[in-house]
Amino acid sequence: MSSQKLFSVAVVGVTGAVGQQMLRLLEERDFPISQLKLLASASSAGKTVKFKGKDITIEEAKPESFKGVEIALFSAGGDVSKKLIPAAVEYGAVCIDNTSAYRMDPEVPLVVPEVNIDKVHEHKGIIANPNCSTIQMVQALKPLYDRFGISRIIVSTYQAVSGAGAKAIAELKRQSAEILAGNEVVPDILPVGSLPVKHQIAFNAIPQIDKFLDNGFTNEEMKMINETKKIMGDDSIQVTATCVRIPVVYGHSESVYVELKEKFDMDEVRKLLAEGPGLVLVDDPANQRYPLATEAAGKLETFVGRVRRDLYNEQALNMWIVSDNLLKGAAWNAVQIAEYIALEQK
Amino acid sequence: MSSQKLFSVAVVGVTGAVGQQMLRLLEERDFPISQLKLLASASSAGKTVKFKGKDITIEEAKPESFKGVEIALFSAGGDVSKKLIPAAVEYGAVCIDNTSAYRMDPEVPLVVPEVNIDKVHEHKGIIANPNCSTIQMVQALKPLYDRFGISRIIVSTYQAVSGAGAKAIAELKRQSAEILAGNEVVPDILPVGSLPVKHQIAFNAIPQIDKFLDNGFTNEEMKMINETKKIMGDDSIQVTATCVRIPVVYGHSESVYVELKEKFDMDEVRKLLAEGPGLVLVDDPANQRYPLATEAAGKLETFVGRVRRDLYNEQALNMWIVSDNLLKGAAWNAVQIAEYIALEQK
Repeated sequence: MSSQKLFSVAVVGVTGAVGQQMLRLLEERDFPISQLKLLASASSAGKTVKFKGKDITIEEAKPESFKGVEIALFSAGGDVSKKLIPAAVEYGAVCIDNTSAYRMDPEVPLVVPEVNIDKVHEHKGIIANPNCSTIQMVQALKPLYDRFGISRIIVSTYQAVSGAGAKAIAELKRQSAEILAGNEVVPDILPVGSLPVKHQIAFNAIPQIDKFLDNGFTNEEMKMINETKKIMGDDSIQVTATCVRIPVVYGHSESVYVELKEKFDMDEVRKLLAEGPGLVLVDDPANQRYPLATEAAGKLETFVGRVRRDLYNEQALNMWIVSDNLLKGAAWNAVQIAEYIALEQK
Repeated sequence: MSSQKLFSVAVVGVTGAVGQQMLRLLEERDFPISQLKLLASASSAGKTVKFKGKDITIEEAKPESFKGVEIALFSAGGDVSKKLIPAAVEYGAVCIDNTSAYRMDPEVPLVVPEVNIDKVHEHKGIIANPNCSTIQMVQALKPLYDRFGISRIIVSTYQAVSGAGAKAIAELKRQSAEILAGNEVVPDILPVGSLPVKHQIAFNAIPQIDKFLDNGFTNEEMKMINETKKIMGDDSIQVTATCVRIPVVYGHSESVYVELKEKFDMDEVRKLLAEGPGLVLVDDPANQRYPLATEAAGKLETFVGRVRRDLYNEQALNMWIVSDNLLKGAAWNAVQIAEYIALEQK
């Protein structure tokens, strides 16, 4: 990306689990940056962060912070996005928002580059990054959707605590150590920081991510249901989701049952998955090879395996989809979108 | 159970994770025992185990060990069951086998007391205990099956390491401690002790339990598929299963999607589940109450929650089913069968 236009870039929420990965990726990918603003809450303002060997001082994120900013990556929570993105757009920035604040806004494109990068062109200042658990699923299913169509998806997730932020990672480690030492644990973050009831995550499985709605589904489950339809651009896809937090640090795993609209050949399915953009097919039962969260952690790709035809519905498949929720599920998807915008304006 | 016939009982595999629970339940339930034989492999022979305050010496399990035994509980692996059960039957014992050795034998009843206790009467010396992941699912679904019929089940499991025995529990604890200390781990038990490839279970999710078959499913998955039909006595039920080991010590959790054959009312569904034998409905999203492995551990019941109508198929339900895999999933189901046999002969 040398000899191209350079951009004034802001990262909002740079001290968070996703913000740190955004910064790391901008550095590693040598993103064409003229000026880099690192923004966070007042409590982090004044701290310095290294970027390409230089110390950059974190500033408090305010509406006027975005003067002159061309690309802003937001990952500081929905409230911050709602408060600051309108000002950033007013100043002319393209905002790539990792929160759920604008995802279902019909004016805002919801983009997974491997699935619907063309939607970027429709933005009016805001491009939304989908929910982590949605991104890896639609990315893996897109090649099958394009070839056969999809009528039904039933997904159960095995989600890492890093999706709930750095405090949840610390909580899992602390609880695990306490239990191994034979002590009682007092949960204080998960399943949802802002709700009163807390549950032990170490050596447990919590079937709640985000708040409950009146229909008995959680927000996280409804995100998978609604975002999948918006990203695929197909309201006819019937998604059912059960989202579960498990004691894993990095990497969401998903057990996915999918009904296709046409008959399929398993060899073709495997070829489509193996060649799908950003996908790695890890599917060799004889050698006990399948995607694992511990192996996906730190990688940019989404891993697919355990691909098998359903025994009762010959137009249905079962598979296991794993990706690093902080990378393809958040920071990398956002930086991919930023890279696309940068390339377009070269 | 006082003033009734007393039985000569044998427990085979008494040093294992399930065998220990069998012994504990026989003691706690005050099972009517005249003589108790504790059998295990040669390496455990000579050790003593406490039962009701008395030391009982473990003997090596041999064909002739079963002379005079009336009820024998087996949980020492399929090979041991295949080798010793014919002799035990020959000596007149009723064998309750917790292994998979005889489960799909058409001559052998496969029994979950809350579902098909009547099948006990058809035994010819052997009664099979189903797989742990199957037991809790069919127990929870039985009240719905009786009222509405079931056409389709799609289940993804979150299974505890104790299902793979005491060594797997030790491995999870050892790996967890190593990782928290920042050390590398060298897996040596899971996912399948007898297979060459091992994977880290601490802070991971392994989509393999038992060996793979040519159809891409694992033995564990096929057990859920085939045993469900046999226990329900209905070959038309279409089951799909994905079985996953997660870093939990005790308690299997299951995300279950089920299509019923008739329209249903959610209040009636909840009532059926709340009143189902051995079931506890824990389903209060407003107060963040749902079944958790850590809360089911050590309990005899099966816990059901997250019960919600599917958003696209009004005849389908989603739910979360949790039970202690060593108790209702193994030892308790076997002791329940033994208690029924004892009561019948009172």
